[in-house]
Amino acid sequence: MAANLRAVDSHGVRLLTDYSLALKTGLIDGTAEGVIENLSGACATINGQRGLGQVISTKACDLAISLAQDHGVAFVSVFDSSHFGAASYWATHIARNGMLGLAFTNASPTVAPWQGRERRIGTNPICMALPGDDIWLLDMATTTVALNRIWKAASQGEPTLPAGWAMDAEGVPTTDTQAALAGFPMPLGGYKGSGLAVMVEILCSVLSGGAIGTEVGGTRVRTRPMLTSHAFIAIQVERFMPLAEFHQRMLRLRDMIKGVKPAPGYEEVLMAGEPEWRAEKERTASGIPISPAIWKELEDLARSLGVQPPVTIME
Amino acid sequence: MAANLRAVDSHGVRLLTDYSLALKTGLIDGTAEGVIENLSGACATINGQRGLGQVISTKACDLAISLAQDHGVAFVSVFDSSHFGAASYWATHIARNGMLGLAFTNASPTVAPWQGRERRIGTNPICMALPGDDIWLLDMATTTVALNRIWKAASQGEPTLPAGWAMDAEGVPTTDTQAALAGFPMPLGGYKGSGLAVMVEILCSVLSGGAIGTEVGGTRVRTRPMLTSHAFIAIQVERFMPLAEFHQRMLRLRDMIKGVKPAPGYEEVLMAGEPEWRAEKERTASGIPISPAIWKELEDLARSLGVQPPVTIME
Repeated sequence: MAANLRAVDSHGVRLLTDYSLALKTGLIDGTAEGVIENLSGACATINGQRGLGQVISTKACDLAISLAQDHGVAFVSVFDSSHFGAASYWATHIARNGMLGLAFTNASPTVAPWQGRERRIGTNPICMALPGDDIWLLDMATTTVALNRIWKAASQGEPTLPAGWAMDAEGVPTTDTQAALAGFPMPLGGYKGSGLAVMVEILCSVLSGGAIGTEVGGTRVRTRPMLTSHAFIAIQVERFMPLAEFHQRMLRLRDMIKGVKPAPGYEEVLMAGEPEWRAEKERTASGIPISPAIWKELEDLARSLGVQPPVTIME
Repeated sequence: MAANLRAVDSHGVRLLTDYSLALKTGLIDGTAEGVIENLSGACATINGQRGLGQVISTKACDLAISLAQDHGVAFVSVFDSSHFGAASYWATHIARNGMLGLAFTNASPTVAPWQGRERRIGTNPICMALPGDDIWLLDMATTTVALNRIWKAASQGEPTLPAGWAMDAEGVPTTDTQAALAGFPMPLGGYKGSGLAVMVEILCSVLSGGAIGTEVGGTRVRTRPMLTSHAFIAIQVERFMPLAEFHQRMLRLRDMIKGVKPAPGYEEVLMAGEPEWRAEKERTASGIPISPAIWKELEDLARSLGVQPPVTIME
């Protein structure tokens, strides 16, 4: 719901069906709470026991917050978790405690490393959130666009994609939507995006002892558990300056950036997170639009679980 | 020299002339050693006192290493420093102590935020190094290419640049080399690169209390001090697993990625850092080529300081 409010619908309630199926088939263990396996100084590793990513990440973030309260900074890595939803939810959870919150996760191997043509790593996002007012929030896949942007273009019958979005099955950059569907999302800017994705993979899976790259499952993989790894960093702002001063300094940076003359075709320069906060304000007031197909899935899911589906509000 | 060995010539001995001028005019204080202004738990802020970035960063990285030895992870921010050379030098310095080393710095405001057309932020690099053998090392500007790639294309008379490298003076993406010279380097992949650059700005300058964005000087700015901010993160691997196990896991990730079938036009998939290690091996054996123009500058600099220039080896 938090993701849908921010108009990040790819990470919203549509995942309930996938999560539910994984719970039913045992690929996710709904009873697992996660176990702290290493706790040393400001560092910890959590064994996610194939639990729900949301349950395990709550435990991991709360531990990161507590360790950062003691040490000023903390690093918590997690292995054998599952899909944790939108990274911004976790970075924000940490940030609410007067901290910079950073969240990383590996993901299903859907991306070919740059110069290659076989899937090996995930869209491995990088996310950082700040305490205080909504000024800036970064939550980005390390591919040029998220996979679902390509699927969406295809489902809307768009014949071409912008340059830089995708590669064909041979690993050659393409703007043909069908070729992109058979191929791979492009790492952000080419080799640098591949580098960032591997950085995330190292922080998450290599350091935690979890499944690496192709060993990771996914929300659409029905034959094996997700075994997702995450990493969380918490940095207590007040070790550096009072929160009010940090806030003033962020406003200074924001004004510097927002004050820039826009390029032709744009009305303003945006800070990371602004589009999502605007969507959140609008959707909080007027509701979250859900596509008929996903609504139908949710109704079917509710019925299959003996839950009364909510009343459908037709547009 | 370390940068030249890695063929990162933009950050090599050519900077001596700029550094020397800044020392002479007092924009860099060659006697400053930096002062720890905040030390709390695993966090610290260092006042660089307008010292040489290399001197201040040595102090900051050594402190990060020492704090990470005590706490497992450390965050050290630096303000009022100067250009610190190549970020990889500092991340590697930390990594040699059995740690993941992360290094960030802000830089001269040469980049327009995405959708804008006025310079506000730097090429703000992200760098991470690993302990042990040379497997992977990320050191990347958050623009598609470093500024000097655009200058180099212009000096070689190339009329056009690859798409995605630059924007013209209006902030519109361009492939015209002259238009790019009058414009800006493009943030990596557009808005995501801008987001990453601001992340680096927050970690460095906002959190340290230093100069933000347009308040930062630069190696080519003769009228005011650089006031560069850096941030260093050290994460002790042995808090998570023995170093040998980490190394084995990195080899597993490397084999997974290097084993990918290359796309047409490429002979292999590269790990971040590989091209530079290959250059380092070659240049360690056969020497570092220096352009006649830079060699002349270095000779002039040597003479002006009463230093005997080394014997010129002509090719």
